[in-house]
Amino acid sequence: MSRLLRSWLESANAPDCEFPLNNLPYGVFSTAGSDPRCGVAIGDQVVDLPALQAAGLIDFPGAFDAPSWNAFMALGREAWDALRARLIALLAADSNDQAAVAATMVAASDVTLHMPMQVGEYTDFYAGRNHAVNVGTMFRGAENALPPNWLHIPIGYNGRASSVVVSGTDVRRPWGQLKGPNDDLPRFAPCARFDIELEMGAIVGTPSNGPISVDEADANIFGYVLLNDWSARDIQAWEYQPLGPFQAKATATTISPWIVTRAALDPFRVDTPERDFELLDHIKDTGPMLYDIDLSVTLAPMGEAASTIARTNYKEMYYSAAQQLAHHTTSGCPMRVGDLLGSGTISGPEKDNRGSLLELSWGGKEPFTLDSGEERSFIQDGDTLALHGTARGDGYSIGFGPCIGTVLPALPNPYSR
Amino acid sequence: MSRLLRSWLESANAPDCEFPLNNLPYGVFSTAGSDPRCGVAIGDQVVDLPALQAAGLIDFPGAFDAPSWNAFMALGREAWDALRARLIALLAADSNDQAAVAATMVAASDVTLHMPMQVGEYTDFYAGRNHAVNVGTMFRGAENALPPNWLHIPIGYNGRASSVVVSGTDVRRPWGQLKGPNDDLPRFAPCARFDIELEMGAIVGTPSNGPISVDEADANIFGYVLLNDWSARDIQAWEYQPLGPFQAKATATTISPWIVTRAALDPFRVDTPERDFELLDHIKDTGPMLYDIDLSVTLAPMGEAASTIARTNYKEMYYSAAQQLAHHTTSGCPMRVGDLLGSGTISGPEKDNRGSLLELSWGGKEPFTLDSGEERSFIQDGDTLALHGTARGDGYSIGFGPCIGTVLPALPNPYSR
Repeated sequence: MSRLLRSWLESANAPDCEFPLNNLPYGVFSTAGSDPRCGVAIGDQVVDLPALQAAGLIDFPGAFDAPSWNAFMALGREAWDALRARLIALLAADSNDQAAVAATMVAASDVTLHMPMQVGEYTDFYAGRNHAVNVGTMFRGAENALPPNWLHIPIGYNGRASSVVVSGTDVRRPWGQLKGPNDDLPRFAPCARFDIELEMGAIVGTPSNGPISVDEADANIFGYVLLNDWSARDIQAWEYQPLGPFQAKATATTISPWIVTRAALDPFRVDTPERDFELLDHIKDTGPMLYDIDLSVTLAPMGEAASTIARTNYKEMYYSAAQQLAHHTTSGCPMRVGDLLGSGTISGPEKDNRGSLLELSWGGKEPFTLDSGEERSFIQDGDTLALHGTARGDGYSIGFGPCIGTVLPALPNPYSR
Repeated sequence: MSRLLRSWLESANAPDCEFPLNNLPYGVFSTAGSDPRCGVAIGDQVVDLPALQAAGLIDFPGAFDAPSWNAFMALGREAWDALRARLIALLAADSNDQAAVAATMVAASDVTLHMPMQVGEYTDFYAGRNHAVNVGTMFRGAENALPPNWLHIPIGYNGRASSVVVSGTDVRRPWGQLKGPNDDLPRFAPCARFDIELEMGAIVGTPSNGPISVDEADANIFGYVLLNDWSARDIQAWEYQPLGPFQAKATATTISPWIVTRAALDPFRVDTPERDFELLDHIKDTGPMLYDIDLSVTLAPMGEAASTIARTNYKEMYYSAAQQLAHHTTSGCPMRVGDLLGSGTISGPEKDNRGSLLELSWGGKEPFTLDSGEERSFIQDGDTLALHGTARGDGYSIGFGPCIGTVLPALPNPYSR
């Protein structure tokens, strides 16, 4: 297990800091009266990348002209490695550039965080086994829980990139067409079973234009974010057969503000689980490609303290992001810089490991209890949901910032005008 | 029915010309040694829009700086109407600007056509009733042919925008994971049931950020293209449950090179069909929103003449593009300039009206015969498939240019290296 890299910035060396020198996650920030721009989190500060470049301390022409990491990602892996190495040198305890770098820093408490990249396209997988078994059992019975293809390919669907928002964005409860089990006909109504999905998102940093291997796919991933795939379960139940989820998943998908790079997560790699069936060559395991990242979900009713409602770990996945990306390219599908791949909901084996309210309340039949004693089956208006992720090293840990959203009440019927 | 608008360009007045003054479709073209740029088709010529603007004959600052119609679309409906009115004036028989406009024209025979716009996101619907009944009968039996939701919402799924290509682009037969009915386990193999889907594509020209009505949706559509949603049926059969088609639809989707504007198609509006169930308010019919456009598919084996294998009409749809777009926004899904909506396969009631080989050969069980006597169930390597669309007015007709692609043999197994 890797050790803490010490920085001259003392706040970065604190054991509970999620942004030590080992992390250096990439985001986009602004301060009051200034435009959004690329930044790096370190301790309780954010390094202003355009300022660092203007000061001559880094040299990546064109990379930081726009408030997104897409241009930098497009420079390729050598640039990724070079920037990380240079930032570590500038911020390490023995750096000779402390004063010059300090001059480009802004207190994290003063910044507003924005979308860290422009999302190309967004794909959402369904590659967590416990989640698939739970949902399958509820919808199709225990005997048919896993679809026949599930153990052979990471099944997924294309989501809606335009609906991806950064942590802190409020989420409006949607309306939609739905049909209850006792309804003769469908009706248009506000979603009554609004939910989260605890996921990790992988960001494609290197484009491809044909089938790529799992190793190539792994190398093409720039970094990871926390991802909450907000889900309207009642809309989903009515619409999803036979073409998959559509409007149920198009209200919003929230990502954490900081992209934690693949390099920062490297020390936390773990193997994928034992296989029931040997995977075919295009997605065969080639090494440890999952990550040991503790994940949790908190729910805070309006004006109340947050309760932790689930704890799980990214290593519960059956398929890694690299396998998902490789599978995504098999048909020749072009992948582009900024494409986002959701892991699928990450649930552990126990009841309190479940990454969605659908599972936590077993389809609403077994409401769960918050610390305050209040019960929940699905999200209520005013609830704030947050995902948290931590990879724990030796004397340090790495985080993503929270992935948080508050659910606002549905607007009046938009079609009653 | 509207009459031919006469142009001073004689080739535009010929009865069999698909680009009369009534049409004025928008595309992107280049000539040998020149960069791609926006153009308008008229008769056997293409008007160079940047040149027309440089000559001071039109004035839409910033609209034609890039080789795509996105910037112009983003100017909004008033600009759309203004450009069309101005082009009609410049190209009409009584125009005083013939010489100046002629100086900006390039012979259509000398141009290469490119993608007319940058596709935002691509959504593919399943809204043709005959197609849904045919496919449903084959897959689930005649009694369960239409899914329960089908008559209440235009069901669809998000496709892959990165795979959309312009007419003339070769299409490589994909590999994929599939499992035959007699296979114990899935295998990785070239698609053996490669297919087309005859569709129309609607292009969103005005963004929206919340639920919009059918009338708003109709007004937000900039224009229409022909669209061929290439489909790997054997990959689809294995992967599509429960999340919908994924790699089966990600090899390519071909669109016609010319965007025919909503204004040009206005004279051809027709009503949607009788409803089995009254539609809910968010997608209720508000007027004629389908179009009477004759559609056909031709198949030409390598080096042979093309046979017409299907004839149908866009008015066979159950839901209009405006209803699909309105439904797409119900959950709050943001729509952006350049978003592309595929209608779903358009089949008529008779056997020779079917818009996919899957239907024409009834799942491969009833091969059909080409003019040469050759048989087909699915596409063979070297086959060239083309879609054609024509709206017929009084003494004129409107076309889109062909939507054409040749299928190349699969590459060697990309994972046997």
